[in-house]
Amino acid sequence: MAEIVTVEDPEDPRLHDYTDLTDVELRRRREPAEGLFIAEGEKVIRRAGEAGYAMRSMLLSAKWVEPMRDVIDALTVPVYVVDPELAERVTGYHVHRGALASMRRKPLPAAADLLRGARRVVVMEAVNDHTNIGAIFRSAAALGMDAVLLSPDCADPLYRRSVKVSMGAVFSVPYARLERWPGSLAAVTEAGFDLLALTPDAGARSLDEAAPHRRDRVALMLGAEGDGLSRRALAAADEPVRIPMSHGVDSLNVGAAAAVAFYAVTAGRPRD
Amino acid sequence: MAEIVTVEDPEDPRLHDYTDLTDVELRRRREPAEGLFIAEGEKVIRRAGEAGYAMRSMLLSAKWVEPMRDVIDALTVPVYVVDPELAERVTGYHVHRGALASMRRKPLPAAADLLRGARRVVVMEAVNDHTNIGAIFRSAAALGMDAVLLSPDCADPLYRRSVKVSMGAVFSVPYARLERWPGSLAAVTEAGFDLLALTPDAGARSLDEAAPHRRDRVALMLGAEGDGLSRRALAAADEPVRIPMSHGVDSLNVGAAAAVAFYAVTAGRPRD
Repeated sequence: MAEIVTVEDPEDPRLHDYTDLTDVELRRRREPAEGLFIAEGEKVIRRAGEAGYAMRSMLLSAKWVEPMRDVIDALTVPVYVVDPELAERVTGYHVHRGALASMRRKPLPAAADLLRGARRVVVMEAVNDHTNIGAIFRSAAALGMDAVLLSPDCADPLYRRSVKVSMGAVFSVPYARLERWPGSLAAVTEAGFDLLALTPDAGARSLDEAAPHRRDRVALMLGAEGDGLSRRALAAADEPVRIPMSHGVDSLNVGAAAAVAFYAVTAGRPRD
Repeated sequence: MAEIVTVEDPEDPRLHDYTDLTDVELRRRREPAEGLFIAEGEKVIRRAGEAGYAMRSMLLSAKWVEPMRDVIDALTVPVYVVDPELAERVTGYHVHRGALASMRRKPLPAAADLLRGARRVVVMEAVNDHTNIGAIFRSAAALGMDAVLLSPDCADPLYRRSVKVSMGAVFSVPYARLERWPGSLAAVTEAGFDLLALTPDAGARSLDEAAPHRRDRVALMLGAEGDGLSRRALAAADEPVRIPMSHGVDSLNVGAAAAVAFYAVTAGRPRD
C-alpha cells in the first residue's frame, strides 16, 4: 500500500514532478528528459495504469483519496495529499480534476516492429499541436487503426494536453517516432503497405474510389492543420487521396478529416 | 458606395449592434429578437454576403478598409471605422480579426420545403454548444449533406462562435427548426427518408452493415456530446446505427462522429 503524505509546503522538493505545468516550453523539454509524463483526472490515471505505465507518484486533493482508494492500495509509490490552493501554486493552474499522477515513460517500440504486426497505420507529419494530436489518437483508437508513426517534428503524444484530449487513447494505440524524414517512409512501403497521402488537392483520387478498406495493408499519412503534407512527404507516398468535398467547402478540420479517413480505411473490417 | 464613418465615442448609439459581444446569454436573446447576427473576419463576412445575407453595417479597424474596399464599394449601409481599443471597449474583447459585420437574418425555410429537395439530411437533437454546432455544419457542408433540421432546443447556428467555427458553412447548408419534438420527426419519415439514429449502443447495427450510402433518402439524427439522443428521439427513428469502435474506446467526440457518419451516408455519391 502506498504511503499517503500530506504536503503543506509548495517548495517541497518531493513535488518537483508537478511544478510549472502551465509552462509548455519548459515541460516539453523536461518531461522526456526526466522520463516522465503527467496523467490528469481519475479516468486517465486508471487508463495509464491499465496500459502498463508505472507510477512515480500521485498528487491528490483530500476528497480524491476515497474514489482512488483501490489504486492507492495497489501502489508502492508516494501519494501526496495537498490543498487545492497548494496544488494551484505548484502546478500553476486550478487542478479541477483533483488528481494528477506522474507516470514513468516506457521505451518506444521500433517502427519496424510496429509495422510487422499492423494492417492499418497512421503516419503524421509535423502535427505539432497537442490538441490535434490527442484528437487524432482518440479517433485512431476508436476506429481501429493499429499503430501510429510520427515524423521527428510531431508533438509529444504524452504531453498532458494530448493525453487528456485523447481520453487516454495515446496509451492504447502503439506509436513510434521515425528517425529520418521522409527517408524512413521507405520502411513503410517495404513492409508491404500502400502509403496513401491525404491531401485536399482536387486532382487526387477520392477515398470512395481508392477503396482503401479493400486493401490488405494501408498506411494513411496526414499533415498538420493548415499546411498539409510537405511536397517531400507527398512524393514519398504511393498515391495521394482526398476526401470528396461539396458546397464549395475546401477543407475539413484536421480532426474531422482524420476520423473520416480512418473510417474509410477500416470500414467493414473485423474489430477487436 | 458605403458611407465611411470614423467613430470615437464607445457610447455612440450607432454601434449598438456590436455591444457586449462576450455576453453570450444577452446576445443569444438579443440577436434573434433584433433580426441580426454577427459575422467576424474577412472570409466569413464575404461568405455571408455571397450567401445572400444583407448587411446592416460593418465595424472595421482602419487597416481593414483597403482589403475590404470592394465589399465597401458595393454597400449602401454605414461602415464604422474605429480604433482597436474602442472596438474592444464596445464588444468586450480584442477583435483580432479586425472586421465585424452586422448581418440581417433571413426567414428560415419550412422543414417540409427542405425535405422535398433533399436526399441527405442531418437532424440534431439538443446540440446546444455553439462550437459543436459550428463544427457539425462545417462537416455537413464539406461532406455533401443537403439540409439540417434542428430540434427546438438546439443552439443558434448564426451565433458568432458557431458561424466562425463553421467557417461560414452555416450559410451554405440550408436549415430549419422543427416545432414539436419529437413529433415533427414524423414529417421526415413521411417524406420518404430512412431516419437513422446515431448511438454508441453496441446493440445497434454498425454503419458498415447498414450501408446508408446505398439508400435513396437518409436522415441521420445526432444527439449532444455526452448525453446522446433521448429515448423519445430514438423511438421515433426507423433504426439505430453505430460507428464501430475498437481498442476499448467507447465514443468519438461529437464532431468526429458526425463527420464519420456524414461520410458513411454520402460516400460514392455524386458531389456538386
